[in-house]
Amino acid sequence: MDINCDMGESFGAYRLGNDYEILDYVTSINIACGFHAGDPMIMRQTVRQAIEKNVKIGAHPGYADLQGFGRRNMDFSPEEIYNMIIYQVGALQAFVEIEKGQLHHVKPHGALYNQSANDAEKAKAVIDAVFDLNRDYVLYCLSGSLIAEMAKDKGLTVFEEAFSDRNYNEDGTLVDRSHEHALIGNEEQMLQHVRRILSSNEVVTIQKKIIKLNAQTLCIHGDGPHALHFARKISELNKL
Amino acid sequence: MDINCDMGESFGAYRLGNDYEILDYVTSINIACGFHAGDPMIMRQTVRQAIEKNVKIGAHPGYADLQGFGRRNMDFSPEEIYNMIIYQVGALQAFVEIEKGQLHHVKPHGALYNQSANDAEKAKAVIDAVFDLNRDYVLYCLSGSLIAEMAKDKGLTVFEEAFSDRNYNEDGTLVDRSHEHALIGNEEQMLQHVRRILSSNEVVTIQKKIIKLNAQTLCIHGDGPHALHFARKISELNKL
Amino acid sequence: MDINCDMGESFGAYRLGNDYEILDYVTSINIACGFHAGDPMIMRQTVRQAIEKNVKIGAHPGYADLQGFGRRNMDFSPEEIYNMIIYQVGALQAFVEIEKGQLHHVKPHGALYNQSANDAEKAKAVIDAVFDLNRDYVLYCLSGSLIAEMAKDKGLTVFEEAFSDRNYNEDGTLVDRSHEHALIGNEEQMLQHVRRILSSNEVVTIQKKIIKLNAQTLCIHGDGPHALHFARKISELNKL
Amino acid sequence: MDINCDMGESFGAYRLGNDYEILDYVTSINIACGFHAGDPMIMRQTVRQAIEKNVKIGAHPGYADLQGFGRRNMDFSPEEIYNMIIYQVGALQAFVEIEKGQLHHVKPHGALYNQSANDAEKAKAVIDAVFDLNRDYVLYCLSGSLIAEMAKDKGLTVFEEAFSDRNYNEDGTLVDRSHEHALIGNEEQMLQHVRRILSSNEVVTIQKKIIKLNAQTLCIHGDGPHALHFARKISELNKL
Repeated sequence: MDINCDMGESFGAYRLGNDYEILDYVTSINIACGFHAGDPMIMRQTVRQAIEKNVKIGAHPGYADLQGFGRRNMDFSPEEIYNMIIYQVGALQAFVEIEKGQLHHVKPHGALYNQSANDAEKAKAVIDAVFDLNRDYVLYCLSGSLIAEMAKDKGLTVFEEAFSDRNYNEDGTLVDRSHEHALIGNEEQMLQHVRRILSSNEVVTIQKKIIKLNAQTLCIHGDGPHALHFARKISELNKL
Repeated sequence: MDINCDMGESFGAYRLGNDYEILDYVTSINIACGFHAGDPMIMRQTVRQAIEKNVKIGAHPGYADLQGFGRRNMDFSPEEIYNMIIYQVGALQAFVEIEKGQLHHVKPHGALYNQSANDAEKAKAVIDAVFDLNRDYVLYCLSGSLIAEMAKDKGLTVFEEAFSDRNYNEDGTLVDRSHEHALIGNEEQMLQHVRRILSSNEVVTIQKKIIKLNAQTLCIHGDGPHALHFARKISELNKL
Repeated sequence: MDINCDMGESFGAYRLGNDYEILDYVTSINIACGFHAGDPMIMRQTVRQAIEKNVKIGAHPGYADLQGFGRRNMDFSPEEIYNMIIYQVGALQAFVEIEKGQLHHVKPHGALYNQSANDAEKAKAVIDAVFDLNRDYVLYCLSGSLIAEMAKDKGLTVFEEAFSDRNYNEDGTLVDRSHEHALIGNEEQMLQHVRRILSSNEVVTIQKKIIKLNAQTLCIHGDGPHALHFARKISELNKL
Repeated sequence: MDINCDMGESFGAYRLGNDYEILDYVTSINIACGFHAGDPMIMRQTVRQAIEKNVKIGAHPGYADLQGFGRRNMDFSPEEIYNMIIYQVGALQAFVEIEKGQLHHVKPHGALYNQSANDAEKAKAVIDAVFDLNRDYVLYCLSGSLIAEMAKDKGLTVFEEAFSDRNYNEDGTLVDRSHEHALIGNEEQMLQHVRRILSSNEVVTIQKKIIKLNAQTLCIHGDGPHALHFARKISELNKL
């Protein structure tokens, strides 16, 4: 399975994540495009490192909310969403081109990812933007979501996404971050959860029921004190 | 002669310039790319209008200083300048492509324009960025400047630029904006100045000496109460 | 009745509103504090002009969303709301103090105004911030709203607000801006609406029913082509 | 001698410095005010922690350049400098007041600190702003600088500042950051340098000459892997 990780989330003097090391354990990355994180210096450096380590490059556009890291819901019109994606992916495309690489996919970030997952109008804005930029770009989006269905209907290639450290509800949605059990806290549980996804595309919900996913990519995280260690473990599981 | 005008300088709720009307009187425009002015909504609309009115489209990258409108000098490294141009022009390129247009040129804005005109390091950063993006892009820059020479040496097509409302020093540089006579205030004088540029590529300096320019493009302004009127007059002169 | 108007909404090179002229027709103003509009230069100038024309000064804090002019709903926690108000009102206070004026009130702006009007948590955050800054500050808020009640319970002086150009629902809330009849378009209807508010604190709802308000202040607008003309008319009505 | 440290330099999701631990080893701090670093949440938390640990609080205003961390020189007019200081210090004052603390001093940050140190116009703008805010505020500035002299002439209390990790030129200015020996790299050398400042207010210049300072405060840094260790050592030296 494709293993993806958000990258290039530093900004100016602020550093975030262990980007260079994590690149050894993933097969694709999502590069922040300067709205919720990232800046032109970071974007170029991240593109170069991904090409050096032969990892697939994706654009990771988000809301223009640096202080909230693009995680706060905001009321944007579909047209605003469309245009913010064209702008951000366009900027990243230019870095990829001058470095002789190729853009592989687009994955919306944070609140944009969540708010477009099951809202038909916002989903359409995201899909149209990706399609108009390049119909060969793959769209990374929540496994089992409305946007995944709509994108396939439009003719886009979709990688439905599972999460290595998030708990699931019975309907296949993620347990909300405000909920106590949103995150899988324990390493052993997390690895078990990942093993199940990689081997049988299933998860055990917080209601202790097994449900089927249709995931082609697994998201891991590059920040946090144990990120490198987890990434290595997951990478090993994926090669079994 | 090519007549160019800065455009797409509105931002969010703030409106600047008479963009749509001015398009009738110019042959090329420079579209702000979101750092010193402009936003994704404005960029797309401006690209559409330029295509509709069959006017050549240029990118107008500037310093990330919205409050100062990109006019305040800032200390950026050559690498920062290179990357900020890749980012901004890349973003505009994407809008031009989805609208089936073609990007014709790049013109640095404000302090970036001035600080790179005669500084070899900054000039090289600008030139390399434009060249790496697409060696067929034309660079618009100050007539008689170091950057114009360096860009031609690199193999770029250059449009050296004259200004319709600025006074000149004997060495061909513009009279500094802090100087009392930086701007040509009077309409009759301005039209005489423009007439001389269009007919013989010459200007009369503030020292009352005639000097030769090598301008392929003339810059006019789209804001101000008389902008439309002036634009029309200059357009008529240009057709004689 | 107090007549208030939003002011100081320019930003850098961008101008908005006819601030200086409008000051002759209002009794209080709400000065943008740099997050959704305004900047330190504009704030100081607006404070000076208000003192010169002897108009009551209020702070007008908003969401940090310059591009959306603070009008887009955003998910902020109560603590974020509390702190953004302390910061913005604190900044304005400093300008008022160096100019030897006095801050009279606080009026939340745009989405902050609307989202806190009838949400108990957000309303509490706004009220606590104003109270902690200075319990003598008056809170301007929507007539008949939950926040008005809660603020009075807390011991704050409240000016409940009516709007000169907005239509009302039967429950006293404003007709949503997305609705066709949100704004009263016609001058004659607007003046009739204002006359009714000033004389009897009543409005006719879009369901054609008369309802009672409890307004101590009336909000007018300073931008738009007819703003000055309307302001003068309303000021005259208020003096009858 | 007073030991000061820059604090509250985190922003949104980005963390910088070991603020809480460093507070044990300093006698005063300079809190970022949201332009070059810091945000309303961080400012409040930092103010609270300083009060809890009984450390003197200063405002640390800087240029509105988050991406450059306020370290890039920018061309601001004296009036812009004056107003940006009023705004930022005003915002911090409000947090200090609601937490029942007291603001002790103002220290300009980064490029604002450097550009105002020996430029009479910019120095006057800084001094006037601090004086107008509260003539009892102490101004922290470069030891031996023009701004120090001018501030004393104006009647402000001045703490001239020495740096724990920077090399000095013979004229008492700091070795420029672009120079190879700008920073004292070695711990032993740094402690010797600090010992000399604390005991005799002298430094050895990079030309190996001893010069006299007139420092009342010593600046240490709170970020970097060894920051806490150094801070403890310096604090111990200061108590001898």
